[in-house]
Amino acid sequence: MSPKITTELLKQLRQVMKSPKYVQEPVQAYIVPSGDAHQSEYIAPCDCRRAFISGFDGSAGTAIVTEQHAAMWTDGRYFLQAAHQMDNNWTLMKMGLKDTPTQEDWLVSVLPEGSKVGVDPFIIPADQWKRMSKALRSAGHDLVPVKENLIDTIWTDCPQRPCKPLITLDLSYTGVSWRDKIVALRSKMAERKVLWFVVTALDEVAWLFNLRGSDVEYNPVFFAYAVIGMNTIRLFIDGDRMMDPAVREHLQLDSTLEPEFKIQVMPYGSILSELQAVAAGLSPKEKVWLSDKASYALTEAIPKAYRYLTPYTPICIAKAVKNASETEGMRRAHVKDAVALCELFNWLEKEVVPKGTVTEIIAADKAEEFRSQQKDFVELSFATISSTGPNGAIIHYKPVPETNRTLSVNEIYLLDSGAQYKDGTTDVTRTMHFGTPSAYEKECFTYVLKGHIAVSAAIFPNGTKGHLLDSFARSALWDCGLDYLHGTGHGVGSFLNVHEGPCGISYKTFADEPLEAGMIVSDEPGYYEDGSFGIRIENVVLVIPAETKYNFKNRGSLTFEPLTLVPIQTKMIDVNLLTEKECNWVNDYHQKCREVVGAELERQGRHEALRWLIRETEPLIRVQ
Amino acid sequence: MSPKITTELLKQLRQVMKSPKYVQEPVQAYIVPSGDAHQSEYIAPCDCRRAFISGFDGSAGTAIVTEQHAAMWTDGRYFLQAAHQMDNNWTLMKMGLKDTPTQEDWLVSVLPEGSKVGVDPFIIPADQWKRMSKALRSAGHDLVPVKENLIDTIWTDCPQRPCKPLITLDLSYTGVSWRDKIVALRSKMAERKVLWFVVTALDEVAWLFNLRGSDVEYNPVFFAYAVIGMNTIRLFIDGDRMMDPAVREHLQLDSTLEPEFKIQVMPYGSILSELQAVAAGLSPKEKVWLSDKASYALTEAIPKAYRYLTPYTPICIAKAVKNASETEGMRRAHVKDAVALCELFNWLEKEVVPKGTVTEIIAADKAEEFRSQQKDFVELSFATISSTGPNGAIIHYKPVPETNRTLSVNEIYLLDSGAQYKDGTTDVTRTMHFGTPSAYEKECFTYVLKGHIAVSAAIFPNGTKGHLLDSFARSALWDCGLDYLHGTGHGVGSFLNVHEGPCGISYKTFADEPLEAGMIVSDEPGYYEDGSFGIRIENVVLVIPAETKYNFKNRGSLTFEPLTLVPIQTKMIDVNLLTEKECNWVNDYHQKCREVVGAELERQGRHEALRWLIRETEPLIRVQ
Repeated sequence: MSPKITTELLKQLRQVMKSPKYVQEPVQAYIVPSGDAHQSEYIAPCDCRRAFISGFDGSAGTAIVTEQHAAMWTDGRYFLQAAHQMDNNWTLMKMGLKDTPTQEDWLVSVLPEGSKVGVDPFIIPADQWKRMSKALRSAGHDLVPVKENLIDTIWTDCPQRPCKPLITLDLSYTGVSWRDKIVALRSKMAERKVLWFVVTALDEVAWLFNLRGSDVEYNPVFFAYAVIGMNTIRLFIDGDRMMDPAVREHLQLDSTLEPEFKIQVMPYGSILSELQAVAAGLSPKEKVWLSDKASYALTEAIPKAYRYLTPYTPICIAKAVKNASETEGMRRAHVKDAVALCELFNWLEKEVVPKGTVTEIIAADKAEEFRSQQKDFVELSFATISSTGPNGAIIHYKPVPETNRTLSVNEIYLLDSGAQYKDGTTDVTRTMHFGTPSAYEKECFTYVLKGHIAVSAAIFPNGTKGHLLDSFARSALWDCGLDYLHGTGHGVGSFLNVHEGPCGISYKTFADEPLEAGMIVSDEPGYYEDGSFGIRIENVVLVIPAETKYNFKNRGSLTFEPLTLVPIQTKMIDVNLLTEKECNWVNDYHQKCREVVGAELERQGRHEALRWLIRETEPLIRVQ
Repeated sequence: MSPKITTELLKQLRQVMKSPKYVQEPVQAYIVPSGDAHQSEYIAPCDCRRAFISGFDGSAGTAIVTEQHAAMWTDGRYFLQAAHQMDNNWTLMKMGLKDTPTQEDWLVSVLPEGSKVGVDPFIIPADQWKRMSKALRSAGHDLVPVKENLIDTIWTDCPQRPCKPLITLDLSYTGVSWRDKIVALRSKMAERKVLWFVVTALDEVAWLFNLRGSDVEYNPVFFAYAVIGMNTIRLFIDGDRMMDPAVREHLQLDSTLEPEFKIQVMPYGSILSELQAVAAGLSPKEKVWLSDKASYALTEAIPKAYRYLTPYTPICIAKAVKNASETEGMRRAHVKDAVALCELFNWLEKEVVPKGTVTEIIAADKAEEFRSQQKDFVELSFATISSTGPNGAIIHYKPVPETNRTLSVNEIYLLDSGAQYKDGTTDVTRTMHFGTPSAYEKECFTYVLKGHIAVSAAIFPNGTKGHLLDSFARSALWDCGLDYLHGTGHGVGSFLNVHEGPCGISYKTFADEPLEAGMIVSDEPGYYEDGSFGIRIENVVLVIPAETKYNFKNRGSLTFEPLTLVPIQTKMIDVNLLTEKECNWVNDYHQKCREVVGAELERQGRHEALRWLIRETEPLIRVQ
C-alpha cells in the first residue's frame, strides 16, 4: 500500500485557511475530525474528509493541519495502517503511548502566539469543543467555528450525500412499536423535567422509529435528525423516502392520529434553523435535552441556560438493553452466521491446504458469499478483516490488492467479520492455522483464550461497569509479560451499529454505564506481534442473570452467555496451559456449537460443513 | 454506643446561620466538611467540627444542616457506625448506593428558591467548591464563603490548635536532604513554567523538610504551610518550635546559606495575606502551582489567570515513590511490627482460650504495648480496629466501652492495626478464630484470601493504574455472589500518613497515577456480614519490577512484594478451595515470615512468640 501524496492538497488547504472567502480571519490551524455531523463512527464517502486530506482511512483519527505541520492522532489499532497510508507530510501521533502529546498540548507547542484554530462546528462534538476551546484559550489562542467546511472547498470530486430507500421493521423484530418508544422517551423527559429531546445520532433515529436505511456502509442507518417535544414529533430527512407507501404506513403519516403522535417531516438541512426557533420559544426553566456528544453547532443553537446535556441519551440506554424479540433475533442471526462460517472454514481447509490459491480477499469474499445465502441477510456489519501472517498484526486491517497475501499452511490466519441480518448484527473473530502451529503460537493463542474465557465466564454483581472486567481478559497475558493495545469489548446493536454505547469492556475508564441483563457486548482479547502474526478470539455475548451460591445485599449477579457459536480451533490450544475449569468451558462451548449450529446445518442440508463442525468440536482432553 | 443528642446544638447553629454578626445575609444551609484547612483525613480535635455537630466521628463524612434538615453523607465503611452515633435529627446518606442523592442534588431538592449555602472557605477544597457552586448556581442558589467558622461560634469548649515539638529526620531515614528535595521541586516547577509552589497538605510540608511532628494523632505531621519560589522558601508555622536547636541546625536557619536555600519562617496565620502579596506581584504568564484540593480560600487568593492546579502535586508524586533508604526503613519497621503481633497473638491464644477475660480494648492496648517495645516506635498509625463477632462487620470500628466485646472461642476476631516507627509506617489486618471456625466462615475467609493473593501475586505492565487490579481482589467473592463495599488498597507513607495518594487500588476510578516500582500500597480485601462477623486480610506491599518470560513492547512488568510478614491463620483456610498456585503462595509467604521474623524474634529473645510463629507457619498441604 503506497501512501497518498498530499503535498498539493495541504498547500491548497493552507491557502483556504487564509482566504477571506471562507474565513473571517485567517486560521493558523484547522482540525479535521473523523466523524460526520452525527458523530458517527462509520461514515458516508462524502464525509471521509480526514481520509481525503491524509490518505489514512481507519475508523478513528483526527487530523490537524497548521501552516508548518500536519499531524494525525489515532489509537493502537491503527498505528501500522496510518504509518503505511500517510506520506512524509504527516506526523503520526500514537494515542495511548506515554510520550504522545494531546492535540491541545501539541497545538500549544507549535502555534504562534494568539493563533486561531478553525473547525467545522457541525463535525466537532460539543464536549470536545469545550475541552479544546478551554485549553487553547488558557494558552492565549482561540478555537473558532468555520461555517463552510474547508476540506469540502478543495475536494473537487466529493461524492453526493446518500439518500437510499428505507426498511421498515415490524414488531416481530423490534418487540416495541415506535409509538411506545416515543411514550417511554417522553416519560424519561418528564422525569428530568425537559420539554424537548434532540435525536442526533443516526442509530438513535433509526431505533426510535423502527426504520433502517443504507446511507452508510455497514451501518443500517439513514441521514436524519429528530426533535421530540411532549406533543410534537419532527423528523428531519431528505429525498423521496417519505413517499414510499410502506414507510408512510409504518409511520402512520396518512392516518388520523392523536396530535402527539403525528410526525412532521422536514428537510434534513432545516435542523439548525428549526432548533433555533425552538430555542427562541423557550421560557425560563424549559430545557432541551441533547447528548453532550452532539455537534457544537446544534448545541450552541440552544442557549446554555436551556441546555440539558448527558453523556448518554435515554434512547442510547434503552437501545442497549435488548428485549426478548431482539434477543431472539440476535440468537437466530448468530446461528445463521455460524452456519456461514462453518461452510467457510470447511472450504478454506479444502482449498488452502492442498492448493494454496486462496488470498485474503478471496477468503473475505467467500465469507460474504456464504453469509449472503442466509435468510434476512442485508449486508456486512463492517469491512471484513481477513489477514494472514504479518497482516494479522495490523489490528484493523482490511485486505486491498497491494497488501493481499495468500493463505498458507505456514501462517496464522485471522478473520474478524460480521453481518447485518434483519434480525440481528454479528461480529466474530476466529484465528486459525491450516498447517502446524509453533509451540509459541499455541502458547500465545492459549493466553488469549484464557482471557476470553475469564471475561465470558466472569460472574459479577449487578451495577458493575464493564471496565472493571477488562483486566480479567489480560491477566494470563500479563503473567508472561504480554498485552494488547485495544479494549476488550464494545456494545453491539440489534440490526444496528456493530459498535454502540453506553457499555463496553476497556481499560480506558470512559463513563460507561453499568452492565445490565439484556445488554450485548463483544469479548475480544488478542495478541499481536508486529511483522509476524495476530491472534484474536471474539464472541458476541449477552449479559444474563447468574445464579450464585450466596447473594450479598440482595444485589444479584450477572454473567455472559455467548451468542456467537463458532468453534475455536483446538489445534491452536496448548491444553496443558488451561485449568480444568477453562478446559470444561471450551468443551461445553463446543458442545453447544455442535448442538445448536449442527441442527441448523442439518436443516439446511449442509452435510460437509456439519462434518467439519463435528470434527472441530471434539472435546479437549486435559492430562492431569 | 448511644447517639449524641444534637437538638440544642442544631438550634444554635440555625440561629447563627441567620445572625448578621457572622453572615452578611442569612444562609439557608451550612456545609460542615470533615477536613481541616489542609484537607487532612485525620484531624486535630479542634478541627473535629463535623463530629461535634453530629456525634459521628468516622474519618470520612460531610454534614449539611438546613433550616429543616440535617443530613450526613458517608461511605460504606461507616454506615453502621454513623447510624449508631447520630440521633434522630440526622438523616444518613449512604454514599455508593444507587438511590442516595449527591449533596448537590439533595440541596436542590430541599432548599427554598434562591437560597444561600454557606461553607468555611478554608475547609472546603477548591475542586469541591467548584462542583458544588456550579450545581447550586444552575438551580438558582448560591454557595457563599462564610469567613468565621459557624461551628466554632457555638463550640464553647473547643480545644486549642496543637503546637507540639518537631522531630528531625537525617539522611539515613530519608535518603534525600531537604535541599535536594527543594532542587528537584524547583526543576519540576521550571518544567511546568511556574514560579511559585504552595504546599498545603501537612504530609507534603513534613516530607519536603524532612521534619515530623505530632500535632495530629496517628499522623506525624505539624500545622504548617510552605510557599516555594525559585529563589525563596517560606515556611508558615506557629509556636516556639523553630527555637529548638536541633530544628535550627536541621534547617540551617543560622548558617550562611545561598539565598535560595534560606528559609524564611512566618506565622501560620499569615499564609493568606502572604499569598495575596505574592499574587499582587505577579506579571502576566507567571503562575502559582497549587493542588486542586487546596482550600477554596487559598486558591481564590491567586487570580484565576495565574493559577496552575493539578490533582496531584509534584511532592505528592515524588513522596509516593520510596527511595532505597525509605524502603529499607519500611522493611525494618514491618519486621518489628510482626514481632509485636506474634507476641500479641501468642498472648491472645493463651488468654482467650482458657480464661475468656480479654476484651477488644484490652487486646488493642496489648497490641500497642508490644509495639511500643520496639525500637524507634513513635505512636500508632491509626486507631486500632479490634473487633470481635458482629463488631467486625463495622468496617472502621474502634472499640469504646459501650461496644467493647469479650473475645471468645466462638467468634471471629478482626484486628486492623499499625504503628509509626521512625523508619516506617505499618498497617496490617489479620482475622483469627480462637476456637473452631464454621465451614461457612472458612469458606468466606478463603475467598478473601484468594482475592488478597490475586492482587499480591499479580503481574502487570509498567504504566498500569491501580484501579485496574481491583477486580482481581473480588473475583473469588463475586463467583459466589459475595463482595465488599470498600476499595482494595491505599498508598502508605514512609513514617507519614497511613493513607496517601496518588496511587491506590479501588473500583472507584479516581484519577490515580500509574503504579511505579518503589510505591507502597495496602492489599486488603474483606467480607462482612452485618450482625455476624467481619473478615479482612491486609498486607502492605511494595511495587517491584517483575521478571517475565516475554516483554511486550519493552514495557517491563511490575508485581508486589509483601512488606507485612505476619502469619495468615491457616486454621481459617479451606485448603480445598485454593489452587496449587495459591497454596504455594501461602506456603512461600509463611516460609518468609518464619525466616525473617523468626530471626528477629530469636535476636530479641522472644522464644515463646517464636514457637507460636513456627507453629502458625506450618505449610498447608493440599490434597489433589
